[in-house]
Amino acid sequence: MRLFVAGVDGYLGWSLSQYLVKRGHEVAGCDLFLRRRWVEEMGSQSATPIRHMTDRLHAYEENYGKKLLFREGDLRDYKFVEALFREFQPEAIVHLGEMPSAPYSMVDVEHAVFTQTNNIIGTLNILYAMRDVVPNAHLVKLGTMGEYGTPNIDIPEGFFEIEYRGRKDRLPFPRQAGSWYHQTKVHDSNNIMFACRIWGLCSTDTMQGVVFGTRIDEMGNDERLLTRLDFDQSFGTAINRYCCQAVIGHPLTPFGKGHQRRGFLPLRDSMQCLTLAIENPPKAGEYRVFNQFEEVYDVTELAQKVRKVGESLGLDVQIRNLENPRKEMEEHYYNPDHKHLMDLGYKPTHDVEAEMKIMLQDLIKFRQRIEEKRDVLIPDIRWDGRRRKSVFINAN
Amino acid sequence: MRLFVAGVDGYLGWSLSQYLVKRGHEVAGCDLFLRRRWVEEMGSQSATPIRHMTDRLHAYEENYGKKLLFREGDLRDYKFVEALFREFQPEAIVHLGEMPSAPYSMVDVEHAVFTQTNNIIGTLNILYAMRDVVPNAHLVKLGTMGEYGTPNIDIPEGFFEIEYRGRKDRLPFPRQAGSWYHQTKVHDSNNIMFACRIWGLCSTDTMQGVVFGTRIDEMGNDERLLTRLDFDQSFGTAINRYCCQAVIGHPLTPFGKGHQRRGFLPLRDSMQCLTLAIENPPKAGEYRVFNQFEEVYDVTELAQKVRKVGESLGLDVQIRNLENPRKEMEEHYYNPDHKHLMDLGYKPTHDVEAEMKIMLQDLIKFRQRIEEKRDVLIPDIRWDGRRRKSVFINAN
Repeated sequence: MRLFVAGVDGYLGWSLSQYLVKRGHEVAGCDLFLRRRWVEEMGSQSATPIRHMTDRLHAYEENYGKKLLFREGDLRDYKFVEALFREFQPEAIVHLGEMPSAPYSMVDVEHAVFTQTNNIIGTLNILYAMRDVVPNAHLVKLGTMGEYGTPNIDIPEGFFEIEYRGRKDRLPFPRQAGSWYHQTKVHDSNNIMFACRIWGLCSTDTMQGVVFGTRIDEMGNDERLLTRLDFDQSFGTAINRYCCQAVIGHPLTPFGKGHQRRGFLPLRDSMQCLTLAIENPPKAGEYRVFNQFEEVYDVTELAQKVRKVGESLGLDVQIRNLENPRKEMEEHYYNPDHKHLMDLGYKPTHDVEAEMKIMLQDLIKFRQRIEEKRDVLIPDIRWDGRRRKSVFINAN
Repeated sequence: MRLFVAGVDGYLGWSLSQYLVKRGHEVAGCDLFLRRRWVEEMGSQSATPIRHMTDRLHAYEENYGKKLLFREGDLRDYKFVEALFREFQPEAIVHLGEMPSAPYSMVDVEHAVFTQTNNIIGTLNILYAMRDVVPNAHLVKLGTMGEYGTPNIDIPEGFFEIEYRGRKDRLPFPRQAGSWYHQTKVHDSNNIMFACRIWGLCSTDTMQGVVFGTRIDEMGNDERLLTRLDFDQSFGTAINRYCCQAVIGHPLTPFGKGHQRRGFLPLRDSMQCLTLAIENPPKAGEYRVFNQFEEVYDVTELAQKVRKVGESLGLDVQIRNLENPRKEMEEHYYNPDHKHLMDLGYKPTHDVEAEMKIMLQDLIKFRQRIEEKRDVLIPDIRWDGRRRKSVFINAN
């Protein structure tokens, strides 16, 4: 299939382009390299050394024997998106090209406005370009499990049948997102659902859990193929940050009481799931939602696993809770469904500790790069708008 | 109270500023006059002649004995919003300053992007300026009943208690909006609810039905106090358009089968309801939703009422259905609650025909202005993206 990846320079995008070409697909992609700038703005860098796109493209061709058609440009520019679709005629568009960080969106009004504009307009432009150029293409959109928030009832996959005052309907499940960034994903979901309804487009809206992992097997030993791995407060996700902390002897830092429960999945499972969606498209006009994660974990339980695996590798690992810079529930019910991808054949890795071991071994090599930016491991972007470093607390 | 009206030059805004000053409030407002330009872009004009803001402000002061503090500016400019709030220190902010038209938002990708950016960013800026300048102020936000769409179950006011798989929660009622414009109101609702939750702001989110009417009593006989009344496909609403059609002998034009059911309310009821919300603010941190309409009507039933009233005034009124340019259900269940405003003391006018009579009498005076723009009475903005005039159909 001809597959277009928006945000192909990113953590998921660069990995996915390799996973897909290995399966025989033809891949094109675009990026504006904003992620590289945002991480710099956070005073940080990727723990894994990442190459310029020119080097990446050479390595890609050498390793996979196929070119990746790359265009640098801005999804907020409709003409750019439309021209790309005309040139490449994608059968599926995997949209990973959004600003992906909750804290970054909460910095101040400029960051909030940038995040909402960037994400919403990029997706709107993709929808219009699909309508006008490739109306039969399939939009695989990256959303987040964070769209749902933490309701006190089970979370179905996007829709639920309910009875209310004696009548029944199938309705979108209510969203209660927890940051300006998460809100953009909700706004996108609403916009995409509407476009499918009125224009007959089809889309898989992926409510993805928190991804972790330094690599997929396809990358082999060519360092130019490595994807980025962030550990700063904005672009680093929980397990990735824990692993970076562990390799430099920094305490692992659950926020608040540390009993937030979230769906997690390894990078390799994310690739597997996105590919299942791509290779099993919905029918014309269909808008479907997949909850995409391997299992639900408590963030303290994950810190304990990283400590255990770290100790087995000879690392001295502490866990110390930090004041929570976010406004969120720290103990709550959480039971989301995740059946749709299983039905399509998703085989979860199911070995979190083995994945953590691979990660720690990879990251030990890049220890110095993390050490250099040690300061970014303590968050200071707070949901109340004040900028102040969190302090260590006693969580009990 | 010190009340700030965003969008004070508009249909509701100009009326509300008069209604409020009459009740002894101090009113300030801002506008960028975009509505005037959009209606021009549609090739139309207000049926009622409307004055430049300078004249309006003179008339306001002469009639009400108080100045209206007016600032021209763009809500998308944070510094403008913040400076205004610092200067005026509002106790309530009535946000009527958004692009309010479904068809206008559906013209093409530029209009879609403009609509979503304009509305979402304006509201985000207001939320941030409230947080930083007037955190105890009350945001009265104009949403729309259209946020809910037409589900097959009753529509509560914003939230509902549900039981799902044996557990209970109180959740936001799912939204299924029917245009890019309506989607912006959903996005705003989500953003505002979030801001109330994390910053302790308070807001009344008003799901307003379709407003009709040429005047409120406060305007008296000073023509400079008249508010605008649009009849083009984008900015004219159902009953207002019917009345304009009736006075120039143009057929009244329900869309499709014409059995869409919607909540409607006269302009004077809208003023009464918004004022009840303003004068009875929620508590700090509270986000509440009011469904604001007088009664649910079928759009064909309303056309028949306009015909009846028109005939009593000697007008020759036909009803002819038009091909529906929208994608929407033309026959459906519709039963929204509207109890919260009643509980606060809302007394509905309950006499639609009397209101229609006032409207027709007003509009007969401006017949020539409608006649000049007769062409705009047939819609050509279609939800499928093609631009083509709707033709008359047999609805049975």
